[in-house]
Amino acid sequence: MPVPTVTWEGGLDGRLRIIDQTLLPGEVRIVTCDSVEAVWDAITRLKVRGAPAIGIAAAMGVVVGVRDVPPQAPEAELFAKLAEVADYLATSRPTAVNLFWALDRMKARAAALRGQGTARILNALCREAKAVRDEDAAMCRAIGRHGAPLVPDGGGVLTHCNAGGLATADYGTALAVLYSAHEQGKRFKVYADETRPLLQGARLTVWELMQNGIDVTLLCDNMAAQVMKEGRVQMVVVGADRIAANGDTANKIGTYGVAILAREHGVPFYVAAPSSTFDFSLPDGSGIPIEQRSGDEVAEGFGRRTAPVGCKVYNPAFDVTPAKYIAGIITERGVITTPTPDRVAEHFRA
Amino acid sequence: MPVPTVTWEGGLDGRLRIIDQTLLPGEVRIVTCDSVEAVWDAITRLKVRGAPAIGIAAAMGVVVGVRDVPPQAPEAELFAKLAEVADYLATSRPTAVNLFWALDRMKARAAALRGQGTARILNALCREAKAVRDEDAAMCRAIGRHGAPLVPDGGGVLTHCNAGGLATADYGTALAVLYSAHEQGKRFKVYADETRPLLQGARLTVWELMQNGIDVTLLCDNMAAQVMKEGRVQMVVVGADRIAANGDTANKIGTYGVAILAREHGVPFYVAAPSSTFDFSLPDGSGIPIEQRSGDEVAEGFGRRTAPVGCKVYNPAFDVTPAKYIAGIITERGVITTPTPDRVAEHFRA
Repeated sequence: MPVPTVTWEGGLDGRLRIIDQTLLPGEVRIVTCDSVEAVWDAITRLKVRGAPAIGIAAAMGVVVGVRDVPPQAPEAELFAKLAEVADYLATSRPTAVNLFWALDRMKARAAALRGQGTARILNALCREAKAVRDEDAAMCRAIGRHGAPLVPDGGGVLTHCNAGGLATADYGTALAVLYSAHEQGKRFKVYADETRPLLQGARLTVWELMQNGIDVTLLCDNMAAQVMKEGRVQMVVVGADRIAANGDTANKIGTYGVAILAREHGVPFYVAAPSSTFDFSLPDGSGIPIEQRSGDEVAEGFGRRTAPVGCKVYNPAFDVTPAKYIAGIITERGVITTPTPDRVAEHFRA
Repeated sequence: MPVPTVTWEGGLDGRLRIIDQTLLPGEVRIVTCDSVEAVWDAITRLKVRGAPAIGIAAAMGVVVGVRDVPPQAPEAELFAKLAEVADYLATSRPTAVNLFWALDRMKARAAALRGQGTARILNALCREAKAVRDEDAAMCRAIGRHGAPLVPDGGGVLTHCNAGGLATADYGTALAVLYSAHEQGKRFKVYADETRPLLQGARLTVWELMQNGIDVTLLCDNMAAQVMKEGRVQMVVVGADRIAANGDTANKIGTYGVAILAREHGVPFYVAAPSSTFDFSLPDGSGIPIEQRSGDEVAEGFGRRTAPVGCKVYNPAFDVTPAKYIAGIITERGVITTPTPDRVAEHFRA
């Protein structure tokens, strides 16, 4: 992916830069986040979005937040600052499990080096954040490799929201499957749901697929059923924000509906996500909190009021697709076919 | 009257007034159409929309166009003017079947009175235009009366697009069911799909329900499944553009998907439409043509480009919901429960 979703230039004193996805596709603007508040703001306001990219930004945000602790300061000062920064960043996007995973990983790295000195720990945190990014890139490629054989040569693939390069540091998750299949020479058409209210499909998925030379057609979310009925779709693949131990999957609002429509039309519905998306503390999806967002995103999302002033709006950011609708979950380790608690557990035992 | 979509105040010298729907919901402007050119403009520019409302406006437009013929003038002068006015109005919205139906009805009424004098014919045309409106209103009320018992007291109702008073001269079709139930004192919540790409749900349905004191919540089309999963919806009711002899129903794009989601959640899905919506020349929905509209409606529908320039867009205006998903079709004659070709035929034999 040629787009620098989240980058870190240099060492401990380097620069965290992100592409402001709220401005795409009209404008490609790279912004520097030089304070932890700027990182929090970028995550909250969806300048950076997508579970893996949020995890990377959060890990790098920890570095931005703690690097002003002097190298000669007592370790206790660094650990206090680290806890404060991590707690603060954890409030930026409460549904994103990768956020907590990345923050925990940074804290664990520091804890493992306790007693080795502030300077050493600071540098280790910087390396750890970069490792989060590098491992994400490798995971994207592995997900693409495992998923590519599932793409119907000569067929159509529908996707919802953006689980692409813009959601990660590299190839994406759902779109990694398509990029890999495209590299292998498979020919297929992609149908991209625009994904109201924030139009990540229209603004981001269509944009990055076009950038990469993949045949993509935009449609409104409510057209997915018709496209399936016309026989244009042989596979659905989406990303995930959190996956429970039984395979129940939280993803962008509308995913659950697409899964039902896919089953009704005999189209296999796949989820593509890294292992870090699994939350084994949840036996099923019923425990996943559904973030409710401002009604203004729906009523005046694009600079113009399109609903009556004062109207009530329901705006859940996510929904949960029960595992029974899922043909397979594609991770960097392989594919969990028709997920069950046992199959998910087996996948991670191997 | 819930909404003053199209009104006529007074007799032959009365005033034709319409609500300018292009300004809703931001501005409620009632405009007087005191020339046939003003009526033509209102229809052409979608200030008045919805098949029944267009027919009513056209019938009244004929009166506006011919009433300056002096009562003492020879009949030939009136018939010449009538032909000229009808031909002119026929060009305002060339695909609207109700437009031609209304114009033909006005011409037929005049022709039936040939020889009875200009003054008498002029007054008869005024009464005929009002009759078009009154019959539509009666039809709306009858649909409401038959549908109201189906509304779940204390429950939730989801609707898609706008099949309300703004599409007719009175209560609408799908929304007539809700208005009638509301008048009967039933308490229920309405969930209105925004209905991409043109947002008739957000702009029109939410507005008119709020005007009438009905509890309504706006949601994006892709949230319908989640709202149903949460148990908030006990009935779906939508309008129809055309219904085949077996009950297959063409309506605004997205309706078919909603029907599938409703069945998956055990929620009954109803269609409300006048008898005139049935097309008995079609044994089933496969013969209903699906109008494809400009991709710009999707890619820059909010007054701002929200998808990459040059992207491909799929934008069907309608879809067809197979009868097997439909719990009942509510007409001014009653309810066709779980429609089949026999039950539809029986409904109209009665």
